[in-house]
Amino acid sequence: MNPDYMLIIHGGAGEDMMLNPQVIGVIEFALQTALTLGSQVLQQGGKSLEAVQRSVEALEDCFLFNAGKGSVLNKDGKNEMEATIVDGATSRTGSVACVQGVKNPIRAARCVMENSSHSLMVGDGAEEFLQKLEKKEKPVGPEYFYTDIRHKELMAKLGGGSTSTNNHPQTVGAVALDCRDGLAAASSTGGLVGKLKGRVGDTAVVGAGIYADDKLAITCSGDGDVFLRNTVAQKIASLYYHKGHSLRQACREVMNENLKGVCAGVIAVDIKGDAVIETNGGVMSVASARGAAVCFGTAPTSWP
Amino acid sequence: MNPDYMLIIHGGAGEDMMLNPQVIGVIEFALQTALTLGSQVLQQGGKSLEAVQRSVEALEDCFLFNAGKGSVLNKDGKNEMEATIVDGATSRTGSVACVQGVKNPIRAARCVMENSSHSLMVGDGAEEFLQKLEKKEKPVGPEYFYTDIRHKELMAKLGGGSTSTNNHPQTVGAVALDCRDGLAAASSTGGLVGKLKGRVGDTAVVGAGIYADDKLAITCSGDGDVFLRNTVAQKIASLYYHKGHSLRQACREVMNENLKGVCAGVIAVDIKGDAVIETNGGVMSVASARGAAVCFGTAPTSWP
Repeated sequence: MNPDYMLIIHGGAGEDMMLNPQVIGVIEFALQTALTLGSQVLQQGGKSLEAVQRSVEALEDCFLFNAGKGSVLNKDGKNEMEATIVDGATSRTGSVACVQGVKNPIRAARCVMENSSHSLMVGDGAEEFLQKLEKKEKPVGPEYFYTDIRHKELMAKLGGGSTSTNNHPQTVGAVALDCRDGLAAASSTGGLVGKLKGRVGDTAVVGAGIYADDKLAITCSGDGDVFLRNTVAQKIASLYYHKGHSLRQACREVMNENLKGVCAGVIAVDIKGDAVIETNGGVMSVASARGAAVCFGTAPTSWP
Repeated sequence: MNPDYMLIIHGGAGEDMMLNPQVIGVIEFALQTALTLGSQVLQQGGKSLEAVQRSVEALEDCFLFNAGKGSVLNKDGKNEMEATIVDGATSRTGSVACVQGVKNPIRAARCVMENSSHSLMVGDGAEEFLQKLEKKEKPVGPEYFYTDIRHKELMAKLGGGSTSTNNHPQTVGAVALDCRDGLAAASSTGGLVGKLKGRVGDTAVVGAGIYADDKLAITCSGDGDVFLRNTVAQKIASLYYHKGHSLRQACREVMNENLKGVCAGVIAVDIKGDAVIETNGGVMSVASARGAAVCFGTAPTSWP
């Protein structure tokens, strides 16, 4: 058994962040907080699945990231969020997309994974499913998500301005390896500014923007439609398995062959603890932690 | 240039079809008709993209298949359909999911591919997008889809009966190679009987139930949630590329390693014209045609 844990989180990749130093300072603080919360889970011998969820929840709660509270607005001025969680050990996955009244989409994705026989649920159907659960959470209204910055971004986008998807932090995500060699990945996003109602991106699709199994865990950030068409995360995994590439080589090959000219970032970890953070020429806000679990050798009661 | 074209279509894979000979006769007739319509496109030198769409449209129009008119009902007694089309040559894709009032979901998927910057659109948003197009089609109501057989299936399912997803033809699909070596794939389904509202399956997801590029085209049928979790179509492609497997070897390896005990069928064709029809122990209704295009050597005006 490997006593080490590894956690990497990201707050989005972009070409041109155009952020002032004060905002960058707040983003760094928020990332560090999210990392600490996830790391605590792993340090106490908890599962990678719990850790990635905890970190992503924290990022969803910060208005600066494009996920949860900070989600960008679609063409109709509404939030439509998506998220996926993958438990590498059991190959279980859960995803939601086009949800509007959910405070933490990553928790909703976990509910789909745990409480339904389906993998991906969208829109009203997903929200009705969540409201029928015993442990349901109170829906939140548009006022919870509203911020001036998101409203201005949409106005600029609809007015043909240059506020593209690339000048603010995007999708958030986390990958983790726990002290029992369990791997997991989680990802959450508000999607693209000014997107059409009903658009689903790569964050809701296992194999596109996210992937995990019993050997590796990957989450991506960037132009979701390109990631979807190219099944990017699964391509990285395939190179790792079939061509004997290291995780870094696999990420770089897919970046070079499938994501040329596209704003893209990938974080990944494998069972050996190899950690990879790669961007395709842009900037990406990331934080990572590696350490030894305190309960090494003692299985917590929550373990199966 | 290869003068041959190849078209394979399927009307679903199942474990236990339990159909009487008369129904089987009608299914065979419908498959043959759909094959002829797609083949005509290829014979006249048309594109694989047009051919797969034409064949899938024909299958969607037949009440016996679980797609378009014959779509099964969700838990609320409503149709929620999904479809994807992939143009291998250009790597363009379009998908819709959870659409209710669309007569031919595969045409809607083509509209997403051609008229939006997105890859996958779902629910009301997708239908609103379609209604804003210049060449919009009139929505159809629930009465268009209603058949006694689908109603009875739902009642049996909700009553805990054995009418599972496996005792009637499921997802329909087509793969084609045209005389200019262009590959394409199309797939359409009503999903699972009694599924939850808002559930999206593998047919809406490139890499899961469908895949095409400039070397091969694949569509799958079976337990959609398993295909989604395992990114099945992309895994087949990866084995073909990275391990030097033939198309058949690649299909069989994924069937054996990722789809054990799962009802699954795959049809695929590669640029060499190798055609594969594989099922995982079940039955699958298929039809295929190979021939020489009459306009070999003369580019039709519709070619780019």
